[in-house]
Amino acid sequence: MVEQHVQHANGVVGQVDGQVVPRYAGLTTFARLPRLQDVGPHDVAVVGVPFDSGVTYRPGARFGPSAIREASRLLRPYNPALDVLPFQDAQVVDAGDIACNPFDIPQALDQIQAGVAALVGEGKPFVILGGDHTVALPSLRAVREAHGPVALVHFDAHLDTWDTYFGAPCTHGTPFRRASEEGLVVKGRSAHVGIRGSLYDRRDLLDDEELGFTVVHCRDIERLGADGVVDRVLERVGDARVYVSIDIDVLDPAFAPATGTPEAGGMTSRELLAVLRGMRALPIVGAGVGEVSPAYDHAQITAIAAANVAYELVTIMADGARS
Amino acid sequence: MVEQHVQHANGVVGQVDGQVVPRYAGLTTFARLPRLQDVGPHDVAVVGVPFDSGVTYRPGARFGPSAIREASRLLRPYNPALDVLPFQDAQVVDAGDIACNPFDIPQALDQIQAGVAALVGEGKPFVILGGDHTVALPSLRAVREAHGPVALVHFDAHLDTWDTYFGAPCTHGTPFRRASEEGLVVKGRSAHVGIRGSLYDRRDLLDDEELGFTVVHCRDIERLGADGVVDRVLERVGDARVYVSIDIDVLDPAFAPATGTPEAGGMTSRELLAVLRGMRALPIVGAGVGEVSPAYDHAQITAIAAANVAYELVTIMADGARS
Amino acid sequence: MVEQHVQHANGVVGQVDGQVVPRYAGLTTFARLPRLQDVGPHDVAVVGVPFDSGVTYRPGARFGPSAIREASRLLRPYNPALDVLPFQDAQVVDAGDIACNPFDIPQALDQIQAGVAALVGEGKPFVILGGDHTVALPSLRAVREAHGPVALVHFDAHLDTWDTYFGAPCTHGTPFRRASEEGLVVKGRSAHVGIRGSLYDRRDLLDDEELGFTVVHCRDIERLGADGVVDRVLERVGDARVYVSIDIDVLDPAFAPATGTPEAGGMTSRELLAVLRGMRALPIVGAGVGEVSPAYDHAQITAIAAANVAYELVTIMADGARS
Amino acid sequence: MVEQHVQHANGVVGQVDGQVVPRYAGLTTFARLPRLQDVGPHDVAVVGVPFDSGVTYRPGARFGPSAIREASRLLRPYNPALDVLPFQDAQVVDAGDIACNPFDIPQALDQIQAGVAALVGEGKPFVILGGDHTVALPSLRAVREAHGPVALVHFDAHLDTWDTYFGAPCTHGTPFRRASEEGLVVKGRSAHVGIRGSLYDRRDLLDDEELGFTVVHCRDIERLGADGVVDRVLERVGDARVYVSIDIDVLDPAFAPATGTPEAGGMTSRELLAVLRGMRALPIVGAGVGEVSPAYDHAQITAIAAANVAYELVTIMADGARS
Amino acid sequence: MVEQHVQHANGVVGQVDGQVVPRYAGLTTFARLPRLQDVGPHDVAVVGVPFDSGVTYRPGARFGPSAIREASRLLRPYNPALDVLPFQDAQVVDAGDIACNPFDIPQALDQIQAGVAALVGEGKPFVILGGDHTVALPSLRAVREAHGPVALVHFDAHLDTWDTYFGAPCTHGTPFRRASEEGLVVKGRSAHVGIRGSLYDRRDLLDDEELGFTVVHCRDIERLGADGVVDRVLERVGDARVYVSIDIDVLDPAFAPATGTPEAGGMTSRELLAVLRGMRALPIVGAGVGEVSPAYDHAQITAIAAANVAYELVTIMADGARS
Amino acid sequence: MVEQHVQHANGVVGQVDGQVVPRYAGLTTFARLPRLQDVGPHDVAVVGVPFDSGVTYRPGARFGPSAIREASRLLRPYNPALDVLPFQDAQVVDAGDIACNPFDIPQALDQIQAGVAALVGEGKPFVILGGDHTVALPSLRAVREAHGPVALVHFDAHLDTWDTYFGAPCTHGTPFRRASEEGLVVKGRSAHVGIRGSLYDRRDLLDDEELGFTVVHCRDIERLGADGVVDRVLERVGDARVYVSIDIDVLDPAFAPATGTPEAGGMTSRELLAVLRGMRALPIVGAGVGEVSPAYDHAQITAIAAANVAYELVTIMADGARS
Repeated sequence: MVEQHVQHANGVVGQVDGQVVPRYAGLTTFARLPRLQDVGPHDVAVVGVPFDSGVTYRPGARFGPSAIREASRLLRPYNPALDVLPFQDAQVVDAGDIACNPFDIPQALDQIQAGVAALVGEGKPFVILGGDHTVALPSLRAVREAHGPVALVHFDAHLDTWDTYFGAPCTHGTPFRRASEEGLVVKGRSAHVGIRGSLYDRRDLLDDEELGFTVVHCRDIERLGADGVVDRVLERVGDARVYVSIDIDVLDPAFAPATGTPEAGGMTSRELLAVLRGMRALPIVGAGVGEVSPAYDHAQITAIAAANVAYELVTIMADGARS
Repeated sequence: MVEQHVQHANGVVGQVDGQVVPRYAGLTTFARLPRLQDVGPHDVAVVGVPFDSGVTYRPGARFGPSAIREASRLLRPYNPALDVLPFQDAQVVDAGDIACNPFDIPQALDQIQAGVAALVGEGKPFVILGGDHTVALPSLRAVREAHGPVALVHFDAHLDTWDTYFGAPCTHGTPFRRASEEGLVVKGRSAHVGIRGSLYDRRDLLDDEELGFTVVHCRDIERLGADGVVDRVLERVGDARVYVSIDIDVLDPAFAPATGTPEAGGMTSRELLAVLRGMRALPIVGAGVGEVSPAYDHAQITAIAAANVAYELVTIMADGARS
Repeated sequence: MVEQHVQHANGVVGQVDGQVVPRYAGLTTFARLPRLQDVGPHDVAVVGVPFDSGVTYRPGARFGPSAIREASRLLRPYNPALDVLPFQDAQVVDAGDIACNPFDIPQALDQIQAGVAALVGEGKPFVILGGDHTVALPSLRAVREAHGPVALVHFDAHLDTWDTYFGAPCTHGTPFRRASEEGLVVKGRSAHVGIRGSLYDRRDLLDDEELGFTVVHCRDIERLGADGVVDRVLERVGDARVYVSIDIDVLDPAFAPATGTPEAGGMTSRELLAVLRGMRALPIVGAGVGEVSPAYDHAQITAIAAANVAYELVTIMADGARS
Repeated sequence: MVEQHVQHANGVVGQVDGQVVPRYAGLTTFARLPRLQDVGPHDVAVVGVPFDSGVTYRPGARFGPSAIREASRLLRPYNPALDVLPFQDAQVVDAGDIACNPFDIPQALDQIQAGVAALVGEGKPFVILGGDHTVALPSLRAVREAHGPVALVHFDAHLDTWDTYFGAPCTHGTPFRRASEEGLVVKGRSAHVGIRGSLYDRRDLLDDEELGFTVVHCRDIERLGADGVVDRVLERVGDARVYVSIDIDVLDPAFAPATGTPEAGGMTSRELLAVLRGMRALPIVGAGVGEVSPAYDHAQITAIAAANVAYELVTIMADGARS
Repeated sequence: MVEQHVQHANGVVGQVDGQVVPRYAGLTTFARLPRLQDVGPHDVAVVGVPFDSGVTYRPGARFGPSAIREASRLLRPYNPALDVLPFQDAQVVDAGDIACNPFDIPQALDQIQAGVAALVGEGKPFVILGGDHTVALPSLRAVREAHGPVALVHFDAHLDTWDTYFGAPCTHGTPFRRASEEGLVVKGRSAHVGIRGSLYDRRDLLDDEELGFTVVHCRDIERLGADGVVDRVLERVGDARVYVSIDIDVLDPAFAPATGTPEAGGMTSRELLAVLRGMRALPIVGAGVGEVSPAYDHAQITAIAAANVAYELVTIMADGARS
Repeated sequence: MVEQHVQHANGVVGQVDGQVVPRYAGLTTFARLPRLQDVGPHDVAVVGVPFDSGVTYRPGARFGPSAIREASRLLRPYNPALDVLPFQDAQVVDAGDIACNPFDIPQALDQIQAGVAALVGEGKPFVILGGDHTVALPSLRAVREAHGPVALVHFDAHLDTWDTYFGAPCTHGTPFRRASEEGLVVKGRSAHVGIRGSLYDRRDLLDDEELGFTVVHCRDIERLGADGVVDRVLERVGDARVYVSIDIDVLDPAFAPATGTPEAGGMTSRELLAVLRGMRALPIVGAGVGEVSPAYDHAQITAIAAANVAYELVTIMADGARS
């Protein structure tokens, strides 16, 4: 009953050994990796933020970290698309969940920021398993402390640069307006990818541009293809440090039914994974994938997509940590 | 496409006529009744409170009113168990939903109280379709304004008399502690029915008793039967005015899977309906049924149970309005 | 509890204000628009036809209008892909459901035709939320009365030009054979898009051609792309008035699982939305989207797709109404 | 790949041998019994009637026979509660499905009657797997031909003695009014068991009584228990030949979620099975179980209940055939 | 992100504090208890056995331990029905899962026996989260080593005393025949509770009796009530040490849809919990609850029932450990 | 109730006539074709292999054949994409299921091989409905007996050329390593299509190449398109006889949620069908489609895809049989 993690020659503690413990067995950490407290210093951390009090439609993303972890049991140690052994090349850990107050958004933001800051330390990369997209704001605040402003690459059906909703300044529809106002992101180097669906007003797009973002509309991905999207992103980001924030609703409801505000006409998971892989050379200092609301999931479709998205991000970070 | 409600000889506007418009057709009001604004003065109002920001585990009850209304399409005009024609004997209306802020619990409480107060007026009875159980507090506040303190008959797996949760005084676990403290309920005349499951501490039960409640434990219903429960309730309530608050999780998860904090070993829907019918002689001035979280519902099991619960309550109120 | 629709300066009554009433709250009209009877003259009507007695396999589309409306709560007032504010530029209304007899197809056809005719009047555009595809026939009959024969652009996995099924001339497999025979559609200007799956015989395709239709097979969309499909449609239609009939099974079961006769290998929702937007310049006088059978839907995947399809159609009609 | 049915010493062909072919394997006949055409004369027939064009709310019972058969794979050859080996004591067969027209109720009634008559012949007992409850009427017509009028024991949430619905005389809400009018059932010897839920009018119950039925209300079963219900049924039926018609909605939605018109507060499957076993001494000449709409079923809850109900009926018939 | 377990004054480490970390947050151990390796000596262990290679119908119980743990997040520290604080009165731990070979039943049996033996040591009580019922055999073997033969109280729809299935001596249908043959259970002191459904032959019951068991048939529980069942069990067991083995299919499919071989007409969860509580005075040395196949679960109905069953067992063990 | 198969002029017995028996009616053979034993010599056989004891993650494919057959009710006699009438041009039959031991993999392999060999005889083509991918090995063994080594075209997310898992040499992860070792496939003429997801090590790909396979990675299909994949396959295969083995997980979880080891980023069903059609000129001597685990299926998405895949394969075989 002792967990039997692979011990690599370089001192890294890897996944629970799939040849000893079946992948459906054992406690559920991300990718069956060791817990933060069970190893020495880590290189890359995966951390859950079970918070959904900022959601405007379907709630439930509080159960997202648990569902993504459960779906991540299927992940193996070698990423052939990037030719990287992420759990061997770097010490990747599951840092558990950041506990935050479901009844007090401002307090929760502080708790999340503190939790992320503790992981980042002097600048270690991390991947957040959300949680609704409100969590991107405190995460970016923590990142700014360590790295200064970053280029944001934001995959989402929605801009998330609305101002307030029912008077609340910090919800899952507003993090990137706040981030721009607070100087957390580099204006002119940040982009939204996969935007689609109806908006409240023409001003939504104009405001967004003024806040420093550009948009790769989902309807253009039909023609651009994943390669074209990568080109657009790389050009936009330039040489800035990058934060990648992924709302799983960037995928079509067919690929991600279990999310808070689904929009028809989205990306395929194959496209999203390809775009992420195309960003492998970027200095990604932090990332998050969220808005998985498992009560709406069937056969783990959404959670599996999210787990694989997290895996690509971790791979890039682990590869960067090795360099 | 004009809705064709039955026009009764006594001036009452009834349901959309099921012999003209199939029950699966037409816009979704409770029991296909007219909207508040489409008729003159009403006798009994059904109103939704789509609020779930006070929930501590599975959210989603914000979609409860919509789901209960959809399930209420099956309700017909004659209640044979009580021998009442509720939609003919009284003007029952669907008052729509009370809009309330999902990001600010205190403001939401005020909005709900105001909304209920507007319906109650000088003392008209009403049934709330919740929403999480937080909504019972502002509802009781509005009732007190019209009626003074009332006897509470509370069907639930949980006491809902905890103090705070994450520092928040008003959540779905605390409404009846607040109600007791504020003098909204008559101590010694109020009861919880169906209580079961694990608690935080022995003090939970002691505190509850000090707050003025008694408990009919669900494990005792196995022996008491519905008749025995009715006896206990009637004895407790005496001649006080009554508020009935039903958390659908009083039913076993088999009968109400779609709820926020399910507990095994609950009541059957047949028992619950029987107990409610046994309370027909009581002066019920207000009631609510909630904690239906439709994302967890299958084949509308939970919503149908809730719709029938509401129907019994409306029937008793309509019968009382006629008297 | 009064519904708070946005009142535009041009006199148009828009959606319930999403900044006042959360989108999950309030009674369920399409896109939270006003009911027909609650405003003055309308420009574009959305109307449900909850009828599925013509279905040959999975029934349940009688619940389709209700499910599409519920999914349409997510629609906002600005359509950025077409740069139109449909609910401000025109008075769009929800006309409720057309009541029709589930046990008598001929009578139901008459009821549907009369219901649509009442909406169309002198030629107002409308979008039907089905219902099975049988409803296209009475709809086209009503359209012919106002507009004469129209070019049909028909998105579907199936031709729907079969002759009879179990002796019945009017089912969901036959509307367009009847329409061609009755002169409701312009031969040589009508097209099916998305056709795939097995047929009964080689004659099915030959008959269809003789009835005046051409086919864009779904397998060719793999190469044509959405742009290529648009070119084919525009060329075919020419300058005729257009009726757009969409069986949601034109989408792959991944994008529309909840339908009566699903076929593998279909369109994506991104492709379908792109093709519809490409038709924006056409004079679309009527449209329908149907065959949503909610009992088979998970997380509203199908209903959300259908609601967005309806939104694009309404947008084009509203834009045309403004011109 | 040849099916390997057990060949009993008495010449009876039993189930596919569960020790040779796993129960999840092989083609799906009821209880893995032989098809009618694969054996000689039969004693008891199970036959599907995939018809749901008479349904007033949720359709889908056309898939009921297939779902019940799939769930019946779990049935084994010995019924310990009745101490009978039904598939050894009698030749029980699966007679397949009666094909009937989904678009023409009168023709379908004739097809069903003819199909049942062919099975009954000189008086062989049979169990119908429905299908909506409309099918009870043609079944009773066929039974009358062979046996004369019979006592009806009808398990249902609903009386099914309404007159017409949308002008149609034969739907799933009317079979027993028609049966009474046509003299198919013995007045004064017939009963409804499990009735509950709202009705259209007080007259519904009065009419029902005039048609010759008595009612065991579901709310009374709480006190009567299964034994009390058996007493009531046996007393009512007397020594008449019996037809047992079971609408699966007699069970609570917890036990039978997948049905067309669910009503809260129903029987448990344990109660229903006990009542049926209590009727073992009755001369049951025909029976049916239906209204299983599998699109609403989860984990086969409803279909398993229906399969077990059919198994008890077959057991009683097989036991009677042996005597 | 450090887990914050409650530290009791008596040195016991309790659950993660629900006032600090929301119950939906944090890694998923049973009842949010500490892991075996994170505390000192334990009093009661909960351990998963994710094994389902012995199942004859629906597989999937390999995911059972994970699902039961997820459902156990709702458990709180005080059990009011037994007036015990199980996680304070004793050191209860989650010992993780016993890894076992899915492709080699004999090897898996050895692995399970060794895993349980390591937990039991000199005689510590434990609760297994299964896993299919095959796991009861190696568990009983380990128990015999520490305690000698025990009285078995077995809750199940099935006897599980069949001989072989497809030639395999150890499957989920055979553990208690093997256990009787091997002298693991005390003949004459062991009982099955909740037995129902069809059998292969009359001999099944006779064999079972010869193996030393008695049967409380589920159909008799209708009359016995939970109290009557308790009387029968206590009388049977006498003063022997007890092993409690619970196949969740002892519950009706309404209460436990997600199981391998469901049978209609089962116990309610309220009855099962009551019977277990009635056994509180017995010296229960080991127990298991299994056959939860989560792919068939909806809204965690089955997993919640299983988690509560395990909670009662742990409570009794913790109470006994204190004594 | 007699099944009414179409009798073609060429003596072939076709499907049950869809104009006489509705497609949802009648016993469930593949595509409503006759059973093997009900016709004379066959040309093409479809056979189920309900076996899933070799699965490493989600089990349940034992129910796959039944689910695929149920979904195949929708298949009609004419395949327009290939312009073939498969059920008229050749005698296609449903050969039922091959019974095999769930508890003994080696015995099951022998049973499957024998079952397939009996169908193949002197070389008749066949399509297996799986079952997990373990079944490909005995199938290839049977094919080698009749045809010698074949070119394998393998559609899958996974290579299935791992060596052992928990010591077992024959599981669903290893069939093609064994096949290569045993000389069942032609090295240098075999290919995997659709490979994606994480691996255990870099060696996985190297080993695979040494075993004689080449890989069309799924990430390349984004650029290659279906036509490009066809080119790669045709070039690789050359003029060898071909065995096509399809793990339904080659499709993205959106298109095939119900499978044992899902991987994000897969093929669409439109692509897969197009590639299969592009292989129509190849001499396909045997094929299989499997890994459909219905407990995870929603609205039959996966089973419908699998049924259509089988239909294309049968069409090609029937077309070849005619030549």
